Amino acid sequence: MIAPDPDFKQRTRDSFAKQPAMATLGVTIESIAAGHVVLALAHRADLTQQHGFLHAGMVATALDSACGYAAFTLMPAGAGVLTIEFKINLLAPARGPLLHCEGVVKKAGRTISVVDGQAFQFEPGSSERKLVATMTATIMTVTGRDDVRH
Amino acid sequence: MIAPDPDFKQRTRDSFAKQPAMATLGVTIESIAAGHVVLALAHRADLTQQHGFLHAGMVATALDSACGYAAFTLMPAGAGVLTIEFKINLLAPARGPLLHCEGVVKKAGRTISVVDGQAFQFEPGSSERKLVATMTATIMTVTGRDDVRH
Amino acid sequence: MIAPDPDFKQRTRDSFAKQPAMATLGVTIESIAAGHVVLALAHRADLTQQHGFLHAGMVATALDSACGYAAFTLMPAGAGVLTIEFKINLLAPARGPLLHCEGVVKKAGRTISVVDGQAFQFEPGSSERKLVATMTATIMTVTGRDDVRH
Amino acid sequence: MIAPDPDFKQRTRDSFAKQPAMATLGVTIESIAAGHVVLALAHRADLTQQHGFLHAGMVATALDSACGYAAFTLMPAGAGVLTIEFKINLLAPARGPLLHCEGVVKKAGRTISVVDGQAFQFEPGSSERKLVATMTATIMTVTGRDDVRH
Repeated sequence: MIAPDPDFKQRTRDSFAKQPAMATLGVTIESIAAGHVVLALAHRADLTQQHGFLHAGMVATALDSACGYAAFTLMPAGAGVLTIEFKINLLAPARGPLLHCEGVVKKAGRTISVVDGQAFQFEPGSSERKLVATMTATIMTVTGRDDVRH
Repeated sequence: MIAPDPDFKQRTRDSFAKQPAMATLGVTIESIAAGHVVLALAHRADLTQQHGFLHAGMVATALDSACGYAAFTLMPAGAGVLTIEFKINLLAPARGPLLHCEGVVKKAGRTISVVDGQAFQFEPGSSERKLVATMTATIMTVTGRDDVRH
Repeated sequence: MIAPDPDFKQRTRDSFAKQPAMATLGVTIESIAAGHVVLALAHRADLTQQHGFLHAGMVATALDSACGYAAFTLMPAGAGVLTIEFKINLLAPARGPLLHCEGVVKKAGRTISVVDGQAFQFEPGSSERKLVATMTATIMTVTGRDDVRH
Repeated sequence: MIAPDPDFKQRTRDSFAKQPAMATLGVTIESIAAGHVVLALAHRADLTQQHGFLHAGMVATALDSACGYAAFTLMPAGAGVLTIEFKINLLAPARGPLLHCEGVVKKAGRTISVVDGQAFQFEPGSSERKLVATMTATIMTVTGRDDVRH
């Protein structure tokens, strides 16, 4: 896919840096390409549920950001990004120690984009990453609104 | 709806207390009834996205817990609760200052329960609460597994 | 809810009449109100799956139309309606003999509407209708496109 | 993926043949492999919506069957398959003349399987197939129930 804004990587990093929730959860950028963003989320005891796995909502938060920013890379400069809805399936417990949350644009529309997300777990002693969650997110491109930008 | 376990309220409070993610996000229990749980989430700057609204993932986290625990109230003692999947629609920006996240069981099955969630915002100067997000969650009752309990 | 187009009932009936799939499946209009549409679907052996229940896709088809038209009632004259996505949970087998598929608008936006759907079964010998499926649909208002209208 | 039942292809064809809805809509089997099923759906005027495209519900029906049978290929002999829920995103109008609806298992669990679906359109004069819809379906393996089998 080709990003209409040649400066999409910096624009995405700048917007990500303005999301306090990402810092609070310790989510970091792993890679940015046109229509494809990978975020990293490390296991932390204070983000778990009652069985000691990462709370589904934490995985959803990182995946939603990955999907939203994957769509954002393909938007024109000055546009804002809004999640309309997403659906997540939890396939396996998120035990950690590291998750990669990947968003890949399936369709980049003028108003509506559809993005698939996958969360992969890197487990100690295993050479393969394990798929622990999948997401589909519907993302809206917003223009001309001061309250929803970058 | 009638809970098979007369001690469902205490059992739900105990399990909720074991979710570190709830404390980290400041989510608290507002009310527990059979098949119906309400959690409260206050706006906090460190949980916002780039526009200053609560991150969709934070709303999803509280709603997922509300839905999971609504199903949990109707499970037999000793059962564990797992979210298989959920879908959330974001209807309006979560500006705060207070959200109530409500889970209401639509179907309580032996293995699979389906729960509807709604997040309502209490805005200053308004007498009405505003619907800001809806969720449908598919929840599984797990028995006989030591790693998934309470 | 208040429909901006006073002629919304006739406009909805006219559009519904232009959906050949509805006639093929035997779906009929039960009622139309602003933001609220009920369609009826009778059991038919040629629409079943391998266990003799209505195929999930048939229930989804009628529910999707109910949701789309519920949103359509609140659109301005001349607008077209498109389903962006929907999610359906199947709660109980659709045994028939009659289903009512109901769409209720939760949010009517300028571009995006969110509609909840419920399918109720009327069973012989029972005075209560049974909830057999729930849906959430995200619907788009389309203007200025000749290929997507009414 | 490896099917536990060596006779999974014939078992899948037999079950498919027992779905009257597939014949009614003209859906046929394109290919069956372990964890991977492709169904074909030809455009037919009597299955369209008001703009002349295939009704979203028709695409959903074929995709749901593709996803359900993809999971079915990996189930033990004697098991029944039930769709718990699915979500579909419509990416482009289903203009025809031919759709391939593909289900690919992402996770095959003992009780719950998660399957991704994609609908591709073959357009005249184009050498590439076009993605028109994506689905995620949650499928349940049912054993020991006479009403839900094959």
